[in-house]
Amino acid sequence: MTKLHSALSPLLDHCPKTLPAEAYLDPNWFQREQEAIWHRDWVYIGRLSDLPEKTLRRFTVCNQSILIAHGDNGQISAFLNVCRHRGAEMCGVEDRTFNGRLITCPYHSWAYDIQGHLRSTAFATPTADFDKTEYGLFPVAYKVWCGCIFVSLAETPPEFSPDVGVDALNSWPMTELVTGHEFETDLACNWKIFWENYNECLHCPGIHPALSARVPVYRQGVMSANETSGTPFDGPVLAENAVTWTVDGKTCGPEFSDLSDDERKTAHNFVTVYPNMFVVAHVDYVRIVSLQPLSAERTKLKAEWLFLPETISAPGFDLPNVVDFATTVLLEDGAACEMNQRGLHSKGYRSGRLMPQEFDIAKFHDWVRSRMS
Amino acid sequence: MTKLHSALSPLLDHCPKTLPAEAYLDPNWFQREQEAIWHRDWVYIGRLSDLPEKTLRRFTVCNQSILIAHGDNGQISAFLNVCRHRGAEMCGVEDRTFNGRLITCPYHSWAYDIQGHLRSTAFATPTADFDKTEYGLFPVAYKVWCGCIFVSLAETPPEFSPDVGVDALNSWPMTELVTGHEFETDLACNWKIFWENYNECLHCPGIHPALSARVPVYRQGVMSANETSGTPFDGPVLAENAVTWTVDGKTCGPEFSDLSDDERKTAHNFVTVYPNMFVVAHVDYVRIVSLQPLSAERTKLKAEWLFLPETISAPGFDLPNVVDFATTVLLEDGAACEMNQRGLHSKGYRSGRLMPQEFDIAKFHDWVRSRMS
Amino acid sequence: MTKLHSALSPLLDHCPKTLPAEAYLDPNWFQREQEAIWHRDWVYIGRLSDLPEKTLRRFTVCNQSILIAHGDNGQISAFLNVCRHRGAEMCGVEDRTFNGRLITCPYHSWAYDIQGHLRSTAFATPTADFDKTEYGLFPVAYKVWCGCIFVSLAETPPEFSPDVGVDALNSWPMTELVTGHEFETDLACNWKIFWENYNECLHCPGIHPALSARVPVYRQGVMSANETSGTPFDGPVLAENAVTWTVDGKTCGPEFSDLSDDERKTAHNFVTVYPNMFVVAHVDYVRIVSLQPLSAERTKLKAEWLFLPETISAPGFDLPNVVDFATTVLLEDGAACEMNQRGLHSKGYRSGRLMPQEFDIAKFHDWVRSRMS
Repeated sequence: MTKLHSALSPLLDHCPKTLPAEAYLDPNWFQREQEAIWHRDWVYIGRLSDLPEKTLRRFTVCNQSILIAHGDNGQISAFLNVCRHRGAEMCGVEDRTFNGRLITCPYHSWAYDIQGHLRSTAFATPTADFDKTEYGLFPVAYKVWCGCIFVSLAETPPEFSPDVGVDALNSWPMTELVTGHEFETDLACNWKIFWENYNECLHCPGIHPALSARVPVYRQGVMSANETSGTPFDGPVLAENAVTWTVDGKTCGPEFSDLSDDERKTAHNFVTVYPNMFVVAHVDYVRIVSLQPLSAERTKLKAEWLFLPETISAPGFDLPNVVDFATTVLLEDGAACEMNQRGLHSKGYRSGRLMPQEFDIAKFHDWVRSRMS
Repeated sequence: MTKLHSALSPLLDHCPKTLPAEAYLDPNWFQREQEAIWHRDWVYIGRLSDLPEKTLRRFTVCNQSILIAHGDNGQISAFLNVCRHRGAEMCGVEDRTFNGRLITCPYHSWAYDIQGHLRSTAFATPTADFDKTEYGLFPVAYKVWCGCIFVSLAETPPEFSPDVGVDALNSWPMTELVTGHEFETDLACNWKIFWENYNECLHCPGIHPALSARVPVYRQGVMSANETSGTPFDGPVLAENAVTWTVDGKTCGPEFSDLSDDERKTAHNFVTVYPNMFVVAHVDYVRIVSLQPLSAERTKLKAEWLFLPETISAPGFDLPNVVDFATTVLLEDGAACEMNQRGLHSKGYRSGRLMPQEFDIAKFHDWVRSRMS
Repeated sequence: MTKLHSALSPLLDHCPKTLPAEAYLDPNWFQREQEAIWHRDWVYIGRLSDLPEKTLRRFTVCNQSILIAHGDNGQISAFLNVCRHRGAEMCGVEDRTFNGRLITCPYHSWAYDIQGHLRSTAFATPTADFDKTEYGLFPVAYKVWCGCIFVSLAETPPEFSPDVGVDALNSWPMTELVTGHEFETDLACNWKIFWENYNECLHCPGIHPALSARVPVYRQGVMSANETSGTPFDGPVLAENAVTWTVDGKTCGPEFSDLSDDERKTAHNFVTVYPNMFVVAHVDYVRIVSLQPLSAERTKLKAEWLFLPETISAPGFDLPNVVDFATTVLLEDGAACEMNQRGLHSKGYRSGRLMPQEFDIAKFHDWVRSRMS
């Protein structure tokens, strides 16, 4: 799932070393990343449109279970998914409904309000030394951007900063879109291997035959036409009169009405939010790909396809024509990532070298190093 | 599987802290418990009536394989399940028969007598430096109480002390009872979570609808009627004219003949033997629930239903009517325990607070702390 | 799969202690063995006849993935199975074909020649600071003996030294033989348990009824007739007029033409190459048994049956008659090894004692100790 740049991208002027092999293998390194990145940065957990009012959702961010509550008057709140009494999990299933006001623990019926304050201990009658105000749910910071919910486990969350800015998707009706399809898989690789694969296209000719046929510059192993020429690019991005990422290259419904000519011509507009998600906005639909590390060597991958409600409900809407194209690309990348992870176990390999075309991997490595220092 | 007290139970006068989260999660804590509790205290391993003469049984106590031998003249002996030659397992299956006198290793046929002395090295002809008397099987202490076999891996075993005394079941014909049904499951929780669940009834209204209908005081989340009133309790313990724990509330056979009026009225007489078993004696049958820790976060649970032989063999004996009632309660408690264990992984949770009604958990925690210090 | 000696074998004059229990259980001990033995000594990885020209093979030696290449003009080379770019696995399947000259990484198409030199970085255009000559594949030493491929991960490999010399199989047409059958299984035991089982026959009467019937001396629990008498042995080795290890005792095809009378009479000629293989050469076929440790407590076992091509292709060739006999023995030994491993977990067992008949285990233990010191 390599991103494509429409802007000019300067090649590296040298071949830097990659991160060392232990960055992908060592449980202690993973533990440090958990603290420095995953329990600090903004992590995408799902679409607001998929969380109706009066619903509790459980979501795991790098081994920490989070509870998201959508109250009965639209307010959202997020907590660590644990009761303060004896540590039971408050929400034990992916989703459960509630009355929109009181979040009740299923074990001993302690009840917290939507702000997390402890309101009732049910059949238990605490003595005076127990101060209810000290036993609220542990709050978690959250943010909704473009209809996407993010949480941060930091006490002071960092700035929310997509790579191309928070306004990059302003021409898309992001909050109106609904989920039409989901694809989930587990990969036997470190989460950073996934991002490295995402950040270069040298692998495209060998790994993605169909994608490289659709996006001609990928056949040269580059992410943008001007990467090699150094001059602005003006030809069509997609081959064969295709206008979007579908099997037949045709749109799956009406094009979004507010896109600029440039946005239409680019055909796939990538927005990246490290460490766990990117958005690809097409002229007719939007795709979100997100990941969750399960351990140093296992990562859960999820893709969501978003559409206007009227697109999905239109007669003749052809879902497989939309989802099969990118699903194939994801499966090809997943296999490549696992092959990369296996090789890292070799005792000869300490670190590799980045090629000049791998400028976005270099930036990603710098981001990781800065977070870890 | 909450116990019920018939005696007056004083509420706690404050809300103590629970054990810390690591007590349920940390493999090192579990390792220390293994030494301090599981490889020291008396551990129930099964019913003598299920171990015929001339039988060897293998049983695991917290990762240590134990061999129980029932000889041909009634004597029992217990050993570590390992041959002194090169360390083979003496009994590799749950049960195997033997001649009642010589316990033979299946690997190289070394033979030990029922006292564990090495009697033969078969085809091997040791030289003079090998002293047979130093190569007997490693003995393990054992004890039979109420037809139940217990072992202790301590060199000097502690006193055997059921919570309500060794005579508590004297009115029941414990040694005559035979096993009519077994239920076994693995729980994804620490073994102490099981005992905490056992030691309070605050969860009963939310977790056990059928049980709370049968035992009315449970509907108030208490374990005995006088827990809240502070006055002696004199009403019927079970609702709807029920006299025992069966689905229809009727006995499954004749009532035991020697029970006192109080024992009959109590309807469920609990005896607890930490760390791994409790007995519930009803007017018509007896149930034993026992557990074995597999790791810090996994516990094996077993329930056995004991009956008089004539009860089981009587025409019309309705086994499901007996076992379904308590099995449902066990499954409900198992799910609650697993929910509790999952919540303990939350980084916000360090420890909880006990409520005044959780006086028996406080006692259990004190017992654990004293063993660990 | 106990070996049988035809030469005089002196019994031990005392009963030495075995290796300590942790040698079979402790992951740290296993880690040290990996460095001292498995990543140093010559390890059998397969038959040259099973690796056609223009084929790459992946093989794992104690967690290290090795790539064997058989070029288009007969040359062999061996490398660590990892690309120098970003660490991808070069060969991700058991076998794959190639053009016999360039070994290409499936990820970004870097290509190395058969000597391992980096020849092309495909779409990547490294800057001047990248010196291709420093980025060849990591070489691994290899050796072909009797048609068997061995590799050593040592920088300076040790001498290759089968227990009875490199010429022991000179009368057999080893390079002409082809694989007629393979059997593979995983054993829940340390790899040294397997060799201990191999090195004594005290277990034969109890564990191998059919084998002990075929090889009469095994019925006495000894490996050679003169082991007990101390005098040269002159009788037939196999019972019931059998001449080889088949179910009916008859040959599966023509006898090898160049065997000496002694080699014929011995009936099973054992050659052992520590740490991972032995050969049993019969008058009509050859069997290779090899093992690979997966962890301290898991070992992969493989058996291969080798025949002259004309034997396999002859009408009426009866494969089950050949393979069932030794497969039964292997399964019996595998179960015994797992029983031994389980027993070693007993906290009472620190180490055992070898019997005088276990002289070959004593030698094996000395070999292990010398490697580990």
